[in-house]
Amino acid sequence: MLGVGLAAVCGGHGTCGRCRVTLISGWLSETTSIEHELIPPHDLAHGVRLACQATPLSDCVINVSPESLTTTQRIQVEGLQAIQRIDPPVTSHRVTVPPAGLNDMRADEDRILTELSATDGIDCKVLDIDAARDLPRLLRDGDWTVGVSVRGGEIVAVGPWPSQSLGLAVDLGTTKIAAYLLDLTTGATLGARGAMNPQIRYGEDVVARLTHALSRPEGAEELAAEAVTAVNDLAVSLARDAGVDPSRILEAVIVGNTAMHHLLLQLPVEQLARAPYVPAVTGALDLKARDIRVDIARGAYVHLPPNIAGFVGADHVAMLLASGITSNSDPMLAIDIGTNTEVCLAAGGHLTTVSCASGPAFEGGHIRDGMRAAPGAIEHVKIDGDEVHLQVVDDAEPTGICGSGILDALAELTAHGVVDAVGRLSANHPRVLRSGKSHEFVLVPSTQRGGRPPVSVTQGDIRQLQLAKAAIATGVEALLAHERLEALELSSVIIAGAFGTYIDISSAIAIGMLPPLPLERFRQTGNAAGVGAKMTLVSTSARSDAIELARKAEYLELATATDFMKRFVDNTRLAPYTSHGG
Amino acid sequence: MLGVGLAAVCGGHGTCGRCRVTLISGWLSETTSIEHELIPPHDLAHGVRLACQATPLSDCVINVSPESLTTTQRIQVEGLQAIQRIDPPVTSHRVTVPPAGLNDMRADEDRILTELSATDGIDCKVLDIDAARDLPRLLRDGDWTVGVSVRGGEIVAVGPWPSQSLGLAVDLGTTKIAAYLLDLTTGATLGARGAMNPQIRYGEDVVARLTHALSRPEGAEELAAEAVTAVNDLAVSLARDAGVDPSRILEAVIVGNTAMHHLLLQLPVEQLARAPYVPAVTGALDLKARDIRVDIARGAYVHLPPNIAGFVGADHVAMLLASGITSNSDPMLAIDIGTNTEVCLAAGGHLTTVSCASGPAFEGGHIRDGMRAAPGAIEHVKIDGDEVHLQVVDDAEPTGICGSGILDALAELTAHGVVDAVGRLSANHPRVLRSGKSHEFVLVPSTQRGGRPPVSVTQGDIRQLQLAKAAIATGVEALLAHERLEALELSSVIIAGAFGTYIDISSAIAIGMLPPLPLERFRQTGNAAGVGAKMTLVSTSARSDAIELARKAEYLELATATDFMKRFVDNTRLAPYTSHGG
Repeated sequence: MLGVGLAAVCGGHGTCGRCRVTLISGWLSETTSIEHELIPPHDLAHGVRLACQATPLSDCVINVSPESLTTTQRIQVEGLQAIQRIDPPVTSHRVTVPPAGLNDMRADEDRILTELSATDGIDCKVLDIDAARDLPRLLRDGDWTVGVSVRGGEIVAVGPWPSQSLGLAVDLGTTKIAAYLLDLTTGATLGARGAMNPQIRYGEDVVARLTHALSRPEGAEELAAEAVTAVNDLAVSLARDAGVDPSRILEAVIVGNTAMHHLLLQLPVEQLARAPYVPAVTGALDLKARDIRVDIARGAYVHLPPNIAGFVGADHVAMLLASGITSNSDPMLAIDIGTNTEVCLAAGGHLTTVSCASGPAFEGGHIRDGMRAAPGAIEHVKIDGDEVHLQVVDDAEPTGICGSGILDALAELTAHGVVDAVGRLSANHPRVLRSGKSHEFVLVPSTQRGGRPPVSVTQGDIRQLQLAKAAIATGVEALLAHERLEALELSSVIIAGAFGTYIDISSAIAIGMLPPLPLERFRQTGNAAGVGAKMTLVSTSARSDAIELARKAEYLELATATDFMKRFVDNTRLAPYTSHGG
Repeated sequence: MLGVGLAAVCGGHGTCGRCRVTLISGWLSETTSIEHELIPPHDLAHGVRLACQATPLSDCVINVSPESLTTTQRIQVEGLQAIQRIDPPVTSHRVTVPPAGLNDMRADEDRILTELSATDGIDCKVLDIDAARDLPRLLRDGDWTVGVSVRGGEIVAVGPWPSQSLGLAVDLGTTKIAAYLLDLTTGATLGARGAMNPQIRYGEDVVARLTHALSRPEGAEELAAEAVTAVNDLAVSLARDAGVDPSRILEAVIVGNTAMHHLLLQLPVEQLARAPYVPAVTGALDLKARDIRVDIARGAYVHLPPNIAGFVGADHVAMLLASGITSNSDPMLAIDIGTNTEVCLAAGGHLTTVSCASGPAFEGGHIRDGMRAAPGAIEHVKIDGDEVHLQVVDDAEPTGICGSGILDALAELTAHGVVDAVGRLSANHPRVLRSGKSHEFVLVPSTQRGGRPPVSVTQGDIRQLQLAKAAIATGVEALLAHERLEALELSSVIIAGAFGTYIDISSAIAIGMLPPLPLERFRQTGNAAGVGAKMTLVSTSARSDAIELARKAEYLELATATDFMKRFVDNTRLAPYTSHGG
């Protein structure tokens, strides 16, 4: 399981033929009648198969064509650095007890609790029932010495001594899941893995997922099961890679947006899906892993840091934590760009957040030739007269354009006057083609694609980008207005998230998506939510900080902000911010 | 489901024909081919059926012949009195919150926690995940008013307001299960029900159950499932009888001996089944009902009071609690007679317990014509010259003899010199028959039973009784010796449990099973364990008392007591205690 997302329009039923792969080496199961129907004989003979039909019978090398990928493999799981603050919620201790005999018939539990108190000065009140089930055999097999893992006055696990104390941190994104295996004692990251969120087959975005959960009685159960299975698979893979036992994972932290959080926990989402978008729960949760079917140590807890509001979740809190933002920071903006873009302003002792419906354009959605940042995606664009210079992911043949590419293209087109401030594509450039009633700017002409249609930026794409950037700019503007700040007063702007890592900040400033600050005030931090999840995994005080952040953060509902619609429309202009950030 | 245990030698496979019942009124399913094979046509025509084959199609009145009963229906579930001390662990509160809107987008959890603190002064830190799942719909359906049930800083359930707060107390015996439904607010008992412990099909006594649990991997799982299902069935029946919803049961208490406790919780029993008989856990436990699959409110807890030792369990603690014994009591003995008899001595500021392997004789086991106290069981015996006067359960035709009957018979036979002090049955009484190499004393001659074999007390039965009573007397004696007390110094003796309720104390004194005290010093308390379970259900301070009782109680291992075997042999003599209680 490499965590590569394949297109499966039919849902894996072998009817769409979209999930073609080519066997390079190794053995797959026999070809099926479905494959004989959907794959030309010549291709079949050269190893082309349908991923939904073929089962690997050995280690295989498979070539996946870019068109079959649902999305990028650029899942951000980097950040292998050790976390600095280590005060883990679970600590493990060697305990040796007096052997049982007719002159000492105390319960095993009594033996352990007494010794833990006497030797380590740790007074536990509770022995988890699953730990109690393991204890008698471990004590006798270990010649009356065991490792005891303690969390807030409770023994959550017992194991042989010595053995490792591991933790799992998960950033459960709508599209991607990043998971990290950490040593709870040292804080060292032992491994990192990414996977697509398999809920994606029930809908690409949050709204589609919520709709699925509400569409039928088992909908919510299905979504929860998909997420939990993916997390469990990642845990198993990480443990295998590190050569450790998944049952030694003694604590997990999962961060996600509020919808992912609710769907994972099977909390009701009806009230979250429609105005006033009220979460069932925003406070931090500590749940027994078994209660949500997460397969780590059976008595372990899963910690879920707090959400701020219906559309500002724990992933944003984790990002703020990792970015070092506090209410006492100098004026500072943190932006997590996605289908939903969360923005937080720290200023004047306050933390204020907004959520902007920026839409899927930055992820290639609703863009004619849009795609995620997979090989073949145009990720950067430079226009030089009639020439167009492209940077393509993995230097592959360009097959589409991803978010950072569209952003560059729009900035370049605006700079060169091919697109005007209201977003109209001029017909007066040799690369502009008429297509139907509209125009498109050709990045890769049909002639360079063996006669296949060109890869272009269309007039419709430009409208999508205008809406997306206007949403973000309006959010930023509303926050600045709320604190009566000018954009230039911002000491720094943090851009987090996968998309934000790859964009050219100058392009974003040029079209008025980000405020016009000196470039050195911007920091592109990658998967800061993942880093925040790791911080809360190994540090109790980091958890307190996250809770404090969420408690202090005020949520500003854009729909109720003054002049929201007027400002939004103004912000569709393709030009740098002017006054008051807008 | 009346909780009537039927004989099922074949395990319900329709091959033994033992489970015959007769339909008096109502409708049952069609007769099966198995029934046509095993029941004579004449009987079939008169409504005789096999319980394993027939399914009720309406309310039915069924006659169960005594031979088909595995055991008595005299399950002690009486004690409908209200409990005096009411400080329940769960309290319910009406909470009305401000409605959600675009100007108040707080999470439902936040709304409830804030209001509960502001209005009732109750600061909760935790909202159970299942309660959180129920909350949004209940809030909106209830026009922003709900009932919130709180337990130690945690909201364990939410429900419509008003609604009842109920509790379930269970005495999980090896043979019988007694369950009580209580109103947590008033302490009133709303209903009581009994059932056989269905684990019985895996073995009649504790040792057989432990053996089954260890015999194969799924053994422990099977036993736990049987017990849990029985508890759940009782809860459903009690709730139905009382016209309430089982999901309004917000707390449960289960007491049992240590083996029943471990088997219910699937705690390991290997170390409990062999010397030095060490429990995995003796401390009180508070487990989420869902963790042990008990179907009450999903976020509710099951409280399991503490055990004292491997063979002195929480049922004994509950009995001590109900009996009002404390370490400061005047010298006082409490005896719970069963296959295993637990005895506790309170004296001199100490509580000391022993466990005596008294065997199944008092429950009719290993007694040739023994049976449990079901209709047809001889429960009291009086010998008057050649005449024998019998008291039979339900005044039915006598079909066997139960524990209290055997005890009486032995006392009478001893008093009349038919049995001597060493237990030998004289041949010189007209009712004594030679049977094989041995003798038997006939209670119901064959002539009165239509030619069927007589109902008798055999020489072998007497030997069984001697072993049983010697075990108890030796336990009592060891306790008295431990505290350097004479039997006569005991201010009172409590006899608890089903068997203890029905015995004639004089008979027990006559054969030297109980100490020779004035009868007014004895108290037969019935199912005191059930009463203790109810007390701990509705009172947090009673729970503390139970924990304190268990903590103070010292367990004395008889096998390591001085002269144990010599004393035991001496105590097989059929005569009242002499010195030092022995």
